[in-house]
Amino acid sequence: MCTNVLDKGHVILEEVFGSELSIVNSARVSLGQASDEMGDRERGLINFLIRKRHGSPLEHVIFRFDIKAPLFVVREWQRHRISSFNEQSARYSEISPDYYEIAPKDVRQQVGKPGNYTYEPIDDPDVNYRVREVLNESMAASFAHYDYLINLGVAKEVARIVLPVGMYTRMKYVANLRSLLNFLQLRNHDEAQREIRFYAEAIEDMVGHVLPTVMEAFNKHGRLVP
Amino acid sequence: MCTNVLDKGHVILEEVFGSELSIVNSARVSLGQASDEMGDRERGLINFLIRKRHGSPLEHVIFRFDIKAPLFVVREWQRHRISSFNEQSARYSEISPDYYEIAPKDVRQQVGKPGNYTYEPIDDPDVNYRVREVLNESMAASFAHYDYLINLGVAKEVARIVLPVGMYTRMKYVANLRSLLNFLQLRNHDEAQREIRFYAEAIEDMVGHVLPTVMEAFNKHGRLVP
Amino acid sequence: MCTNVLDKGHVILEEVFGSELSIVNSARVSLGQASDEMGDRERGLINFLIRKRHGSPLEHVIFRFDIKAPLFVVREWQRHRISSFNEQSARYSEISPDYYEIAPKDVRQQVGKPGNYTYEPIDDPDVNYRVREVLNESMAASFAHYDYLINLGVAKEVARIVLPVGMYTRMKYVANLRSLLNFLQLRNHDEAQREIRFYAEAIEDMVGHVLPTVMEAFNKHGRLVP
Amino acid sequence: MCTNVLDKGHVILEEVFGSELSIVNSARVSLGQASDEMGDRERGLINFLIRKRHGSPLEHVIFRFDIKAPLFVVREWQRHRISSFNEQSARYSEISPDYYEIAPKDVRQQVGKPGNYTYEPIDDPDVNYRVREVLNESMAASFAHYDYLINLGVAKEVARIVLPVGMYTRMKYVANLRSLLNFLQLRNHDEAQREIRFYAEAIEDMVGHVLPTVMEAFNKHGRLVP
Repeated sequence: MCTNVLDKGHVILEEVFGSELSIVNSARVSLGQASDEMGDRERGLINFLIRKRHGSPLEHVIFRFDIKAPLFVVREWQRHRISSFNEQSARYSEISPDYYEIAPKDVRQQVGKPGNYTYEPIDDPDVNYRVREVLNESMAASFAHYDYLINLGVAKEVARIVLPVGMYTRMKYVANLRSLLNFLQLRNHDEAQREIRFYAEAIEDMVGHVLPTVMEAFNKHGRLVP
Repeated sequence: MCTNVLDKGHVILEEVFGSELSIVNSARVSLGQASDEMGDRERGLINFLIRKRHGSPLEHVIFRFDIKAPLFVVREWQRHRISSFNEQSARYSEISPDYYEIAPKDVRQQVGKPGNYTYEPIDDPDVNYRVREVLNESMAASFAHYDYLINLGVAKEVARIVLPVGMYTRMKYVANLRSLLNFLQLRNHDEAQREIRFYAEAIEDMVGHVLPTVMEAFNKHGRLVP
Repeated sequence: MCTNVLDKGHVILEEVFGSELSIVNSARVSLGQASDEMGDRERGLINFLIRKRHGSPLEHVIFRFDIKAPLFVVREWQRHRISSFNEQSARYSEISPDYYEIAPKDVRQQVGKPGNYTYEPIDDPDVNYRVREVLNESMAASFAHYDYLINLGVAKEVARIVLPVGMYTRMKYVANLRSLLNFLQLRNHDEAQREIRFYAEAIEDMVGHVLPTVMEAFNKHGRLVP
Repeated sequence: MCTNVLDKGHVILEEVFGSELSIVNSARVSLGQASDEMGDRERGLINFLIRKRHGSPLEHVIFRFDIKAPLFVVREWQRHRISSFNEQSARYSEISPDYYEIAPKDVRQQVGKPGNYTYEPIDDPDVNYRVREVLNESMAASFAHYDYLINLGVAKEVARIVLPVGMYTRMKYVANLRSLLNFLQLRNHDEAQREIRFYAEAIEDMVGHVLPTVMEAFNKHGRLVP
């Protein structure tokens, strides 16, 4: 499964380890029992686990994704420590000019105070256009400086310090379902930054496709952040 | 794969997530590259990662085992925190009389001081026999008391307090390769308790079967505990 | 601070790292601000963090406890992996006969099905007495077998396999506040086993004494397990 | 303790939890013993723990630092997951123009292949000067674009996408000694990027001042990365 996100990003679900039945059987080991297929009792058990926050059986299902996202999104993502990340290195590889170009609808202003912001579109077409122009020209210029420095013979790890946090980067991301549901709870949330939320939505769709009972239970009992 | 361990225990390798190629491609993402199959360069990279302790790509291969082991072994095992465990519960299920009966060759005495013990067999056949008799009769008696208490109507979680740490328990164990190599380094080691070492040996054989390049590199560069 | 728990256990709060002001200032660093003392705004911020599950600033307050508890309690405790434990070793030290002797009021039966047990006292004084007698005599006998084996010259790590999970053990326990609140949420809960709950209550009192604003906010917004 | 690092960064050691004696007594709990002061046996034990990689007692000493560092340094730092970080947010606070201006001696070229780079100074004074000029002008321009966007009314979280990874950021960093020694082993290493290495050196000096026995043992037995 692959979903395009933002203008040039993506989420690719590369591989899933385990299934809803693995969750059930990891939980059932506490009773010395096992199930062969998902039925009503098994779905009930998954609901029970999520409602009661018995999180450990959820660790037995694991996802690996290939992610392409702007660096400021990846920075937030990597604060989720119960995960494995391997990311493109600007020390070891030369970075091509590839940066996030915001869509007109996502150009926004903030209203309110820290901890309580809401965001509204910048509707004035001239301002909206001008914002995108400045963003993109600024990042294009930074990449041009980077190329210039590389051509001067500067080490990649030094030249990269001019690169903007809007640049795209790429990573492999491995997380178990428990960690992933925590990610979704916090990042597919209306207080998350819109850009990471688009990624969280893409992931939530994929997880729901693979584990429909889990996602239904999560929506009923698992979203605990007001 | 299934290996019997001790008199009644086992290690079952239920499922593996990823492969040596996943390790390579997780590492290569830092260079913006990928490989399609394992060749000399790929094997060299795995060696390099283990030698230089670049551990994060090893997190992209994950194993799930079903383990049956004595509780004193499981206690040591669960100190390895970067792992997922789901274990039989003596609160929720009634425990059958199933305990570790030591083999004559494993009846041992310790020589030396804490931090520096060595273990030698107790060769005197009468003492050896007597030790096993006392061990087994003691545990059998504890289980008889447990059954008696259960029959008196006592809650399982209370009755279980008489059960010996030599009782068998069962768990699902999920660990990534990085955590698993750390487990092997510490527990397939001559200072580990012999019983957990037998489990570590069984696991090491399985990992070596699935990931031969990794295990060769680990034996060359990864065993860092003197 | 020291609290006796069960018949011979204890919780000693040895040292606290940080304070409510550390939490506030760890959170305020996101705004490039700092506070010098706790006032209404600071207390409001702590409430906000707990309500919104912004858990990371809570990691900046850390507790170290000395715990003496039965092994079956410690087994549950050590499933909380975001913690540091160092425990008495039955491989390296000889174990004295010291085990949990249940109080008459705690002798209980269970009613209901797994996942939905309730516990009721065993009121019949003869049965209650008989249960305690069997529990204590069984554990005393196990310890006598252990001593006998030690005297036969058996290695401590082998002799200990007859010891009951009701034996007392001792550990140092270091946990940050985020992990500790998760522990309290799950273990100071009416579905936790009564014995670990007594420990959780003792710890909750201590944390409330040191961090009153936190504990008030936790009681209002942080107990999420139904 | 405070050390200036790079042109405008710093490491402030705010608070230490525990001491060498805490390490000793956390280890000694396994033997049911305790020490009152550091002597030869205690120093020997610390050596033994580090040599044998008995890492858990090291978790009982914890440090909190206030760090000011360029974002590309912080990005590497935050890959160390067994740590707590709270960082300045460019969503919630407006960022002042504050970026890393490299010293002439640190302007460098790389020689060799990925996995095997060495770095040599760029000695030609004109090129060296030109590199610094381009780096600084590029970052100054990005900050000017940022200010312009803020003045246009754009949300801070959007305007920040032009900011360079050379910008300074600030964080609280809490890590236990085990995690910290791992950080030092990898980052105070000649293959680490020079800028993070300067921070690691500053931290290593502070840790050595607080825990001299530990640092001596670490230098003898603990640096395992070739």
